Amino acid sequence: MSPNRGNPQAITAADTSPAPREALADRYISVRRLSEALCRPLMPDDYGLQAMPDVSPVKWHLAHTSWFFETFLLKPFLTGYLPFHPQYEHLFNSYYEQVGTPFPRPQRGLLSRPTTEEIYRYRAQIDEAMATLLSSIDPPRLAQVATRVELGCQHEQQHQELLLTDIKYNFSINPLKPAYRTDLPNPMGDLATPLEWVEQPGDVQEIGHDGTGFAFDNESPRHRLLLATFALGSRLITNGEYLEFIEAGGYQRPEYWLADGWRGAREKSWQAPLYWEMDHGRWQVFTLAGMRALNEQEPVCHVSFYEADAYARWAGKRLPSEAEWEVLASRQTIRGNLRENGYLHPLPASEEKPAQLYGDVWEWTRCPYVPYPGYRPAAGALGEYNGKFMVNQLVLRGGSCVTPADHVRASYRNFFYPADRWQFTGIRLAVDR
Amino acid sequence: MSPNRGNPQAITAADTSPAPREALADRYISVRRLSEALCRPLMPDDYGLQAMPDVSPVKWHLAHTSWFFETFLLKPFLTGYLPFHPQYEHLFNSYYEQVGTPFPRPQRGLLSRPTTEEIYRYRAQIDEAMATLLSSIDPPRLAQVATRVELGCQHEQQHQELLLTDIKYNFSINPLKPAYRTDLPNPMGDLATPLEWVEQPGDVQEIGHDGTGFAFDNESPRHRLLLATFALGSRLITNGEYLEFIEAGGYQRPEYWLADGWRGAREKSWQAPLYWEMDHGRWQVFTLAGMRALNEQEPVCHVSFYEADAYARWAGKRLPSEAEWEVLASRQTIRGNLRENGYLHPLPASEEKPAQLYGDVWEWTRCPYVPYPGYRPAAGALGEYNGKFMVNQLVLRGGSCVTPADHVRASYRNFFYPADRWQFTGIRLAVDR
Amino acid sequence: MSPNRGNPQAITAADTSPAPREALADRYISVRRLSEALCRPLMPDDYGLQAMPDVSPVKWHLAHTSWFFETFLLKPFLTGYLPFHPQYEHLFNSYYEQVGTPFPRPQRGLLSRPTTEEIYRYRAQIDEAMATLLSSIDPPRLAQVATRVELGCQHEQQHQELLLTDIKYNFSINPLKPAYRTDLPNPMGDLATPLEWVEQPGDVQEIGHDGTGFAFDNESPRHRLLLATFALGSRLITNGEYLEFIEAGGYQRPEYWLADGWRGAREKSWQAPLYWEMDHGRWQVFTLAGMRALNEQEPVCHVSFYEADAYARWAGKRLPSEAEWEVLASRQTIRGNLRENGYLHPLPASEEKPAQLYGDVWEWTRCPYVPYPGYRPAAGALGEYNGKFMVNQLVLRGGSCVTPADHVRASYRNFFYPADRWQFTGIRLAVDR
Amino acid sequence: MSPNRGNPQAITAADTSPAPREALADRYISVRRLSEALCRPLMPDDYGLQAMPDVSPVKWHLAHTSWFFETFLLKPFLTGYLPFHPQYEHLFNSYYEQVGTPFPRPQRGLLSRPTTEEIYRYRAQIDEAMATLLSSIDPPRLAQVATRVELGCQHEQQHQELLLTDIKYNFSINPLKPAYRTDLPNPMGDLATPLEWVEQPGDVQEIGHDGTGFAFDNESPRHRLLLATFALGSRLITNGEYLEFIEAGGYQRPEYWLADGWRGAREKSWQAPLYWEMDHGRWQVFTLAGMRALNEQEPVCHVSFYEADAYARWAGKRLPSEAEWEVLASRQTIRGNLRENGYLHPLPASEEKPAQLYGDVWEWTRCPYVPYPGYRPAAGALGEYNGKFMVNQLVLRGGSCVTPADHVRASYRNFFYPADRWQFTGIRLAVDR
Repeated sequence: MSPNRGNPQAITAADTSPAPREALADRYISVRRLSEALCRPLMPDDYGLQAMPDVSPVKWHLAHTSWFFETFLLKPFLTGYLPFHPQYEHLFNSYYEQVGTPFPRPQRGLLSRPTTEEIYRYRAQIDEAMATLLSSIDPPRLAQVATRVELGCQHEQQHQELLLTDIKYNFSINPLKPAYRTDLPNPMGDLATPLEWVEQPGDVQEIGHDGTGFAFDNESPRHRLLLATFALGSRLITNGEYLEFIEAGGYQRPEYWLADGWRGAREKSWQAPLYWEMDHGRWQVFTLAGMRALNEQEPVCHVSFYEADAYARWAGKRLPSEAEWEVLASRQTIRGNLRENGYLHPLPASEEKPAQLYGDVWEWTRCPYVPYPGYRPAAGALGEYNGKFMVNQLVLRGGSCVTPADHVRASYRNFFYPADRWQFTGIRLAVDR
Repeated sequence: MSPNRGNPQAITAADTSPAPREALADRYISVRRLSEALCRPLMPDDYGLQAMPDVSPVKWHLAHTSWFFETFLLKPFLTGYLPFHPQYEHLFNSYYEQVGTPFPRPQRGLLSRPTTEEIYRYRAQIDEAMATLLSSIDPPRLAQVATRVELGCQHEQQHQELLLTDIKYNFSINPLKPAYRTDLPNPMGDLATPLEWVEQPGDVQEIGHDGTGFAFDNESPRHRLLLATFALGSRLITNGEYLEFIEAGGYQRPEYWLADGWRGAREKSWQAPLYWEMDHGRWQVFTLAGMRALNEQEPVCHVSFYEADAYARWAGKRLPSEAEWEVLASRQTIRGNLRENGYLHPLPASEEKPAQLYGDVWEWTRCPYVPYPGYRPAAGALGEYNGKFMVNQLVLRGGSCVTPADHVRASYRNFFYPADRWQFTGIRLAVDR
Repeated sequence: MSPNRGNPQAITAADTSPAPREALADRYISVRRLSEALCRPLMPDDYGLQAMPDVSPVKWHLAHTSWFFETFLLKPFLTGYLPFHPQYEHLFNSYYEQVGTPFPRPQRGLLSRPTTEEIYRYRAQIDEAMATLLSSIDPPRLAQVATRVELGCQHEQQHQELLLTDIKYNFSINPLKPAYRTDLPNPMGDLATPLEWVEQPGDVQEIGHDGTGFAFDNESPRHRLLLATFALGSRLITNGEYLEFIEAGGYQRPEYWLADGWRGAREKSWQAPLYWEMDHGRWQVFTLAGMRALNEQEPVCHVSFYEADAYARWAGKRLPSEAEWEVLASRQTIRGNLRENGYLHPLPASEEKPAQLYGDVWEWTRCPYVPYPGYRPAAGALGEYNGKFMVNQLVLRGGSCVTPADHVRASYRNFFYPADRWQFTGIRLAVDR
Repeated sequence: MSPNRGNPQAITAADTSPAPREALADRYISVRRLSEALCRPLMPDDYGLQAMPDVSPVKWHLAHTSWFFETFLLKPFLTGYLPFHPQYEHLFNSYYEQVGTPFPRPQRGLLSRPTTEEIYRYRAQIDEAMATLLSSIDPPRLAQVATRVELGCQHEQQHQELLLTDIKYNFSINPLKPAYRTDLPNPMGDLATPLEWVEQPGDVQEIGHDGTGFAFDNESPRHRLLLATFALGSRLITNGEYLEFIEAGGYQRPEYWLADGWRGAREKSWQAPLYWEMDHGRWQVFTLAGMRALNEQEPVCHVSFYEADAYARWAGKRLPSEAEWEVLASRQTIRGNLRENGYLHPLPASEEKPAQLYGDVWEWTRCPYVPYPGYRPAAGALGEYNGKFMVNQLVLRGGSCVTPADHVRASYRNFFYPADRWQFTGIRLAVDR
């Protein structure tokens, strides 16, 4: 996923029966409104923050998602459309090199202009023009437009998730430890279920998107592969379990770590997951509701792949492959502690087995992010970079507590660098049988 | 000066007849109001910008100057005063290590909280409490309070100048090249006077503050020294003259440069002063009014000491010493293109000889910033760091077009690092006779 | 196999009939002598060079390979053995954290002591003690010793290859462009064969080491997997073909590059493979025999994975997977332009189809270096880090013109980071059918 | 004098009666032989070491000093002289930009070729050609040649000192802690004399070279200046006294430090002078004879200006100005613990008052390195950069235990950056009266 780095890509073939115009316009406007609703708890000062190069300012997210609709829908499809501002192409293009030179990512936080107020006007113009487009587009081009609108909506949903992860990071470095929202529920008291193993005998399996509904191109083609017998952990690893690793010297013992991870962990002095702070002998964690006492029953969150992998080695297990995860996840209905749940924070595991496949935290797999066999990028700017992120990153699965429920699915492949920690990322174990 | 790095320090001895309470309160409130007036052209988005570690966000300037009054006046002198916020000590202390640990300077731009709105409330509380203090302080302590109030006002004036230089830099890196004010006058057409030489025979001279009125401690003690015969340029070097240096290959020829300057200029690819941009074969300069065509009659501005020194060597001259400058400047009335002039940009030279000693641009001298013979720092936190910046920097003299007229004087010693360019800094030549 | 980063690991199970003592001693001494023979063309000044952190000084290679025998054979198996020097453990351990703290890799070139002469004495003591060990070891332990001796020999062979690649790099940055040997043959005139495609229908295949003879543990376990129909290029890509990519703007067009590769190539200003230099309009390449004119018929060499991948995309093809390569390579006898050939430089392709699978250059595959399904690291220090390099690197196959012929095989997995260029690395294409 | 950064420059005017040819040839050859004698304790492996950018390899010193004679004497004055190698200009020029582009300083240690053996042959050719030149030069040009020969000898003496300081640093980072010489005397048991104050009433004084004998151009012109009353410490500060500063928390208390020094000391984690190591609760120091127990009676050595200045502030004193030092030193005969003394390490103070002005350690003054009033650089390449180092550095006075006795004098101005510690640098205090 990683829409700020990666590239969402629609499967265009499947859409033989385009949604009616009204449904399309509804879908569009509901996604757009949600982006703005997510900003409501913010103060004007918060919109421009960029506390590290990996995150983007809130106002940049708001503008970039609008630029996407302007560039890939309004300019090519709406006759007479005039761009809102000639320089927005440069300022709000993230990485499409065929569409001009992007503004340097690490400096996005240095642009006070255009102002947030102007960006909201930009959004309003885009929304108005999109309404015109959707009501006026001629039937022969409706299918193509509908596909792109859905792609734009999915793209904006990805940025909604990033907006929340980025705000969390941006606030975390402030000594005042501001809360994004002070009214988030905090269900202390639930216990995580015991960790068990869900067995799966070896066999030929099929993974990848089956063509029903929307998917990004990196989920295709669906293909068969041979899986050996394995078992998957019945739930995510908890803070309490991860504490045992810390207390066993996990961050001091190189034998548990990949060499690159060990070197990085030493350089950055990692001693615990991101957002953990020791305060008078008790662990506290920074959340979107501000600082909270660590809840040992919750899934551990904000760990890098290196930490997840080291934990697994210490535990005598391993991380699952993406295929192993998908085979089991594809048998479940998509439900869990996703964004609509309203916690914006992981919760202790329920009774389902395996539990927590969807929501709570993105689960690191052991699989480098590479193309599926036979994968081919699409033509043109939209497809320019389909594969351009397929090196050096690892696949994550399942969505998190800040992922929209209608955005994730069994075949969804998210990807981040092995040292990244600011996403809601956690650990599920697997084991060979 | 460099109040964000340096340390203003009052001469406490001279104040035997403290200003009446009313005059003091007027002085205080007029300085404070001016800081806020300078912010009026800004948008809410602009207050948090910090485009390089050397500059500070506007909101930081507004808060830090208030923190100064809170720390050195309200806390020690106003009975029952309660600080506005317990963490402001940490956030808005710039460098007084005896008063807690300062927040890391390069990250000031990463604090969206406290909000600008809250900082204005902070200012209002400080102003109200200061009014109470000034009307209620018992006579025995009034002199000391008056001295500190004046120091706080001088300190705030320094930050007013920085606020403008920092805004200029922060806006300059934005591709939209926003103007701080679009209504600044731009008097094209005036010609600079011819460059002549003002002769001064060698003799014993006296420099340093004479004890009349306010001064910072680095201007003391007044002392005698022997000056050889010299002549001082009758005006500042112009853009047109500096262009000749550029066109003579000044930036390509190491023989004109100090070794450290040459290395830095190559690493940073300097080819002209800061804010110069070549556009279709014509030089443009970024100003507080946005981009303008280069005016060859104006003094060159935003050059480093290295460039000033290289220019002087190319011209077969040298930069003046601070004593040479002060000897001639002390004979003039303080007037010139200072902030009250309203241009916020240097202007061509008038007929006075030497012209432009005050205002337009700070003039690089050849003198490292070191203590005067017999200099002694004051006691306590206010004097903690009187001398702590007296290494690696060069002295500048005379004030600039963004310096308040009542803030500068013949003995005033400003100081910056030799590679610094974002201040309004320029070149006056001198020559041995 | 990156022995300076990776970890060779013997398969211990297979050795049921240990080689006779004499054969073992012969094997040992012939490998050891070859390391020293490779150093004969060097001057004393050359032994300590380390021109970048990735390479090691020649004297370090000579000492580290000896340390391996001392640590894993002499100390545990030779009664009464006294280490040559108590600090060599620290100085010449490369990465075995269980065996003390390694000396920082980037500073290996800063150790003038122990001297080269002392390191040769160290080698002599090790060789003498090893002779004693091999002639005196009791039969019950001979099998284990034999396995470790073979592992040590394989390890030393890896360092022989590195010694040559590192010398090449170390010499390349010297403006005098010294030759390692001036007497290397340079067979100009041969033409590369035309590029054709060797077809392979899709099927279940088996890859991994079959247990016959020595292998590193990362080649196991042998396992089955499903391969789709594909075709493999009949030979390596030549300098001439790569020149077409350069001349088509390959280094200026982001659409051919992975995003990480594009960013790195811009930062390092890559315009051609490593060691290419334009001299008066003609490409020259640095070789172990000094500078030579570029031979367009030779395989392109010293390209990173990013360049190999970009070339493939430009050519409308892709890089092969490691399984695809192994399936075809396992049908061939191991022969080719390997070290014993004496060129120490790639040669134009012969008639075999596919040609050049072994020797000439290591071939970048598209496969991240990850464990095979069911891979398990061994116990103890030797196996401490079996998997510790299995992230962020790509698999290369086939050996190069500086690889010993008895060191490579169809299942051999070498691995380097995608930006690495100082190894003899090149390009073979593949295509889906 | 920092010859690797600074520029030695002869005063040419004074030489009206040139030394006879024989004396000149003797002077030349005795200096040249001493350079080689200093290398005799080294192993071949030691010649190429460069453990940080500030130091140069021994072989580079040997070649660069020869290049100086080749460039400024043999090429212009010896008819028919053929340079030893066309690339040596590039490789062994240190900073004379008018004489071609210098090879990057930080990479000098990466050149194994030319070999040390070749550089000794280079020296031999230069020496032979110089002998020819000195015996054959026509009388009209003898004076100019004699001046340049003396300059070349002084230059080589500077590099002799650097050669020793650089070897010390290069060896210090080796865990084996090699000794340059194991036979250096170590006179434990002597006590430093008590610290007293040598008073000097204020008056007009004259400093700078008086024209008798050789001097570098930065010592001129001799000029008058006004000095206030002061007192100079009767000896250098000892290790024991410096330990008190350490134990009083000197490295933890910002109030004693210049701001730039404090920041640097924190970044580099300074806790003691360079080369001090705590071993089981006892301080050890690295010397040219290897590790020794700290002798509290010896002068503290290898401190930066920042540490010297912080110590002085902690002690309630200050560092002397260069004029104060020179006024008292010019009354003494030049003698002390200089290189010929054979200790190559500072010694406890003798009875003289002030003691230790010459030798032991270079004494940091409070004076930035700037031109004397009226200073003018010479013409041509030799004078190209007379002033180019006159920024950012501080003046040191008096020579050290590795300075040749006939190389130092009262007017000699050495200069280094305030953070430099690898020279033999120490502390003498002064105080205002």
